[in-house]
Amino acid sequence: MREVGIGIAGFGTVGGGVLSILENHAPEIEARLGARIVVRRVAVRDPAKERAVSLRPALVTTRLDDLLEDPKVEVVVELIGGTGEAYDLVTGALSRGKHVVTANKALIAARGEAIFRLAVERGVDVYYEGAVCGGIPIIRTLREALASDRIQSLHGIVNGTTNYILTGMAERGEPLSRALAEAQRLGYAEADPTLDVSGGDAAQKLCILAQLAFGARLRPEEVLTEGILALEPQDFQWGRDFGYALKLLAIARRVERGEGEPPGLDQIEARVHPAFIPRDSLLAGVRGAFNAVLLRSEALGPSMLFGQGAGALPTGSAVVADIIDLSRNIVASSPGRVPLPPATPRVGLRAHAEIRCGYYLRFTVKDVPGVLARIATGLAQRRISIAAVQQREQADGGGAVPLVFVTHGAREADVKSAIAEIDRYDTTLAPTRLIRIESL
Amino acid sequence: MREVGIGIAGFGTVGGGVLSILENHAPEIEARLGARIVVRRVAVRDPAKERAVSLRPALVTTRLDDLLEDPKVEVVVELIGGTGEAYDLVTGALSRGKHVVTANKALIAARGEAIFRLAVERGVDVYYEGAVCGGIPIIRTLREALASDRIQSLHGIVNGTTNYILTGMAERGEPLSRALAEAQRLGYAEADPTLDVSGGDAAQKLCILAQLAFGARLRPEEVLTEGILALEPQDFQWGRDFGYALKLLAIARRVERGEGEPPGLDQIEARVHPAFIPRDSLLAGVRGAFNAVLLRSEALGPSMLFGQGAGALPTGSAVVADIIDLSRNIVASSPGRVPLPPATPRVGLRAHAEIRCGYYLRFTVKDVPGVLARIATGLAQRRISIAAVQQREQADGGGAVPLVFVTHGAREADVKSAIAEIDRYDTTLAPTRLIRIESL
Repeated sequence: MREVGIGIAGFGTVGGGVLSILENHAPEIEARLGARIVVRRVAVRDPAKERAVSLRPALVTTRLDDLLEDPKVEVVVELIGGTGEAYDLVTGALSRGKHVVTANKALIAARGEAIFRLAVERGVDVYYEGAVCGGIPIIRTLREALASDRIQSLHGIVNGTTNYILTGMAERGEPLSRALAEAQRLGYAEADPTLDVSGGDAAQKLCILAQLAFGARLRPEEVLTEGILALEPQDFQWGRDFGYALKLLAIARRVERGEGEPPGLDQIEARVHPAFIPRDSLLAGVRGAFNAVLLRSEALGPSMLFGQGAGALPTGSAVVADIIDLSRNIVASSPGRVPLPPATPRVGLRAHAEIRCGYYLRFTVKDVPGVLARIATGLAQRRISIAAVQQREQADGGGAVPLVFVTHGAREADVKSAIAEIDRYDTTLAPTRLIRIESL
Repeated sequence: MREVGIGIAGFGTVGGGVLSILENHAPEIEARLGARIVVRRVAVRDPAKERAVSLRPALVTTRLDDLLEDPKVEVVVELIGGTGEAYDLVTGALSRGKHVVTANKALIAARGEAIFRLAVERGVDVYYEGAVCGGIPIIRTLREALASDRIQSLHGIVNGTTNYILTGMAERGEPLSRALAEAQRLGYAEADPTLDVSGGDAAQKLCILAQLAFGARLRPEEVLTEGILALEPQDFQWGRDFGYALKLLAIARRVERGEGEPPGLDQIEARVHPAFIPRDSLLAGVRGAFNAVLLRSEALGPSMLFGQGAGALPTGSAVVADIIDLSRNIVASSPGRVPLPPATPRVGLRAHAEIRCGYYLRFTVKDVPGVLARIATGLAQRRISIAAVQQREQADGGGAVPLVFVTHGAREADVKSAIAEIDRYDTTLAPTRLIRIESL
């Protein structure tokens, strides 16, 4: 039987998952592939470290170059993370005509362009299903299943840590600090959760997805990114009363060019932020550490993929599926069968000020006559149309009452300008909270 | 640019969708494929018929053989339906070394084995994503994305017509007849809805999915199949009180061999029937004519795909995605890259009597002392353990009261035997209703 030799670089959580799947599912994989996948080398930082999955000592090396120099390694599986050493390894492998599988979202988001260009030059493949949403086959679906279609929008719950935290806040009324501590205790959040709770992780994933879905070339820092740190339990309660659930969404959406705008590339919105969505929508039912991506496309209409976005076995299964797919290309001598995203962008990024969506605005105001009218006027002057208003009796008698406005679709710049003005009123007692609303 | 010639047989709803996608999305398809897909021939029954999508007269023929005889037709797209003429066309194409794309679930379910064998012999490909769940990429996911994994169970809402009807019954309390009439009025159900409401359509799809997921060789008539015709609005209400939603599910599940059972193939359960599922599960949120498939697999855990299961454009998009994938194989000279399911079954079918699940049993009994005790005893004698009981006051004073038992996991044969006995009691006034419960 034909053998396909692979070298694994990095042997943490995902590496252990990859090896255990390759070992435990070897008969199925051989039957489905018609070839045997053989691990030739595993590069680790510390060979003495205790590991959940045991490694044959003969395979182990501490030199990444051993993977590059071994002619029997046809596929390099990059699981070391980061954008430095990993970049050198990946480009080193491609330069030598080796194929690459990686689960490194930061690397693809930041340096994917150069990596893809090199792969095309050398006639080899780069697969990266594990980089976004772990085991959910979203990359494959965008590259292949929807190759016939034109995607209009993408709404993703792509960060399991924050979805776990938001589920706790929504279902148990917990403040963020307690929900985060619980997520850390259970291993869903890291000791330093900044990349997750800031939305930065989701923005990296969105760049990768937007490139496949729309042909966009975005850097994570270009994405409008707001994390979950400012969310308070009362916003979940207010939202529920309006029929909403609150999720951290990664959103990319094709938008029409406005009247009078100069010609050029078509545009997309690209943003990561907490969003209210209809409580009876499927995305609202995605609980805990799970991920899901809702797509809208011209022919298929709405479709959704759901599953585990992280973990040794879920991400490991995506990496092994990539290894199998790549091995099929190797066995059939058909590298480059599915083209990598082109370097030339097909769409541009719409300015964040021009985003249009619904808005939930929670004002904290003095309980005196005329406040509601004054705020409503401030909004109306900017043609912001109001869909609903709620004011509750104050519980504490302290003089500050929350006043919530839900708007129809409005322009981000108009809403921001209205808030800036209203926050200067002497009747406004605290900065106004803004949460965007997505009708999906 | 390389051209891939296709011939389309049958030009109904899906055929029109395929052609309009090929025309409207040509630039994207060429960019993603690196080749141009050219329609060489379209075989129709009645060239004079008015159609929503117009056809160039030069392409039209009434002879299926014109597709087979044209050397420029490399891929035959079979959309005529049925298992007779369609079988001859498909095998004729394969015999001549042409590849095949079909959206014909009846053909693949009934005669897939012979078709796949011929394709393997001739070194050509058969793709059939459109045959199951329209535009949802479930075939591709089972063949490729989960190639690394071992599937444990599959629960699918695979028939949009019945899901539309059940949604109406659940949300508007309609009787089946009215919900069905509404589905027919809106085009979600055919004038003769037998194949849908009987569960027969879902059983055909289940056979195709079970072969890919488990390596099973099943004929639709071997699947335990119950339709939705016996469902009454009150069962939806009772179920809701117990925390359940009611869906028509297609289920295939790997089961452990019981003690003392003879050795042989591993077994699966395969069944299509109305099932109560937790109301807060994602599948319960799949409303209207939508489809979804929930998978559980060893590495990935639970995952779900959701989307439109029928219609010109959704199914058309699956067919075109198959044409693109096949064209990639043609361009890269890599036919047979993803192996077709093997003819040798890897699992056997568990006897329906041995199925184990929870049961909802609605007895209709005389309102006299001792009835509940007698039924409970009848169940206990067969070691059927009771999870919940509810009896409501009778509204009409007519003497017949409903009495609902929910059981823990029990053996189908034991439950059926208990019902047969209880239905003979003089206190039982109508045949007992049984609905299986899936915890998912």
